[in-house]
Amino acid sequence: MHTLLDKTIPPQKKHSPFTIPNSQFPRVLLAHGGGGQLTDSLLNNHILPHISNPILNDLLDSGILPTTTNRLAISIDSYVVTPWKFPGGDIGRLAVSGTINDLAVTGATPLALALSIILAEGFELTHLDAVMASIATTAKEANVRIITGDTKVVAHNQADGIYLTTAGLGSIPHSTNLHPSQITTGQLLLLNGPIADHGLAVMLAREFPDVTTTLQSDVAPLNHLIHTLMTEHPNAITFMRDPTRGGLAGLCADLARQTRLHITLDESAIPIRHEARHAADMLGLDPLEIANEGKILLTVHPQHAQQVLQTLRSHPLGRDSAIIGQIDKAEHTPDAICELRTLIGGRRIIHKPYGEQLPRIC
Amino acid sequence: MHTLLDKTIPPQKKHSPFTIPNSQFPRVLLAHGGGGQLTDSLLNNHILPHISNPILNDLLDSGILPTTTNRLAISIDSYVVTPWKFPGGDIGRLAVSGTINDLAVTGATPLALALSIILAEGFELTHLDAVMASIATTAKEANVRIITGDTKVVAHNQADGIYLTTAGLGSIPHSTNLHPSQITTGQLLLLNGPIADHGLAVMLAREFPDVTTTLQSDVAPLNHLIHTLMTEHPNAITFMRDPTRGGLAGLCADLARQTRLHITLDESAIPIRHEARHAADMLGLDPLEIANEGKILLTVHPQHAQQVLQTLRSHPLGRDSAIIGQIDKAEHTPDAICELRTLIGGRRIIHKPYGEQLPRIC
Repeated sequence: MHTLLDKTIPPQKKHSPFTIPNSQFPRVLLAHGGGGQLTDSLLNNHILPHISNPILNDLLDSGILPTTTNRLAISIDSYVVTPWKFPGGDIGRLAVSGTINDLAVTGATPLALALSIILAEGFELTHLDAVMASIATTAKEANVRIITGDTKVVAHNQADGIYLTTAGLGSIPHSTNLHPSQITTGQLLLLNGPIADHGLAVMLAREFPDVTTTLQSDVAPLNHLIHTLMTEHPNAITFMRDPTRGGLAGLCADLARQTRLHITLDESAIPIRHEARHAADMLGLDPLEIANEGKILLTVHPQHAQQVLQTLRSHPLGRDSAIIGQIDKAEHTPDAICELRTLIGGRRIIHKPYGEQLPRIC
Repeated sequence: MHTLLDKTIPPQKKHSPFTIPNSQFPRVLLAHGGGGQLTDSLLNNHILPHISNPILNDLLDSGILPTTTNRLAISIDSYVVTPWKFPGGDIGRLAVSGTINDLAVTGATPLALALSIILAEGFELTHLDAVMASIATTAKEANVRIITGDTKVVAHNQADGIYLTTAGLGSIPHSTNLHPSQITTGQLLLLNGPIADHGLAVMLAREFPDVTTTLQSDVAPLNHLIHTLMTEHPNAITFMRDPTRGGLAGLCADLARQTRLHITLDESAIPIRHEARHAADMLGLDPLEIANEGKILLTVHPQHAQQVLQTLRSHPLGRDSAIIGQIDKAEHTPDAICELRTLIGGRRIIHKPYGEQLPRIC
């Protein structure tokens, strides 16, 4: 209702979460890129409605295209991590591993990579050489070739050093069916090692470059590990995903929502290094929400869980694997909640992080 | 030789083309992104040596992966054009068309696209909506779906509004063999319409935003036109490429070098609009070096050239097609030169542009 008062004392402006102060129009926020609820909002309101189709709408790590002989998986990711080099890796290793892993968790054997580079004017050519050498080493480790590419250069204040985009092509046998719809009550959740190393290593390198730490990013291509799992246990695994941006919390909250099932995580069973726990405490961060780049969460039929665990532990990238939770019968149906049994015996609901903890973590 | 003189009067520092003033280390230059000789140097010295393999080394518009049933083509390009909207198109239409065209010129039928978005904090969400709507419209026009994607956000001074990367997957029949090695003496060069429209439309929009002009970018997906050509003339065309960054000059100079043949272009036959010629004159630019985004150069067996020309002209995107040159018997073998017969009857050698005319044209 408009009264005279409106003219003398303007009502306080309401800011939507998309409005930054002093902005007339809704704008992109840094937190839109954090992989949390705000990212979902950006996707659901401004990106997906325009280009919606059944393959895209699944929002899996790869788009899967059926052909007569097999299924083709395509994945794409841009990498804007800063600093470009951090303990345990760099943007080149990240760009190859991240896209390889997005293919591998959908059950695809990577066939080839495409690489696009955006450089800022003034980026040192020796640094470019270091990134390219790291790309080459990681691609060799994953046994995948880069078969096409592109390079663009923008002014020094129009990008921060180097941004990479990798797209991957993979092949999935028709017999493989890893999908959230395969997750049912009673299945167990397995993880291939300690959480939070990548996010913490990058954060420490950026915010405290002078602090020496033993923390290293876990960034690694997981396709060989996943290939071994799929070959040795063809009927054991129902779904896999890598807990990157948003961490284990974001992934498990998403899974509970998508499957409409109740997920229980056992905090005491979730592997985490002492250094990582201390660093997270110091930074005031929840390790469950911190990005990983060499981890996979697997849902596994309970009768196969011990064998899958043995296979995981016998691989260098899965030595500290553990069963960290299960899909429960919900007390209230549909439940769609992820719950954590804490170290001290309490219970708390795991929410998808809202915005971002720290931008440009990957 | 070192003499005492060296200590008192330091010798003038030599700057390599990779050194910007006041820089201790060789750095990336804006001109490294122009699609000219400097781009070649960046690729050959700092990028390709690390990731070299036979498919990549062909440097075609798509990487082509043989499979048992057909060949898969993969293409990737980042788009950093500024302004993001220009007469005749925008970054969304460009990102879909550019990658579709890179697939199509290798003879591939596009199967699917992947889309990765880098947003700068503060980019208006209505502008993002406009870009996404343009992506959707262009993808529909090309009849290709976007089946996977990624979104990253960086700080407002770490990108300029919006950068897009699209990767495309296509399928090539085993019978198709478009490759520079198929180009031989006597073949004719065909072009599907007037040159320089894209580059000039973007330059005018950026440098003279208040000037009104009838010039419009030619940006368009060419896959339907190319499909018609390949279906109606299966044995006529030996190679196709789109003259984007570096323009027709860069493409023809590259082709002469790769094939080690002599190419003659007839300036009077090269279609160009009056407005484009005037704008290029005004800006002091050579239209042959200006980027196009809706053009293809085809090499065609001479006995099929008239029929191919008719098919081109009967398509809306090829109405002004022309035969613009030929592959000659070199007077000196190997020759590897592209020569232009000018309007006034002279001859000049067409060189690949050195750096860039204007950065961020695509």
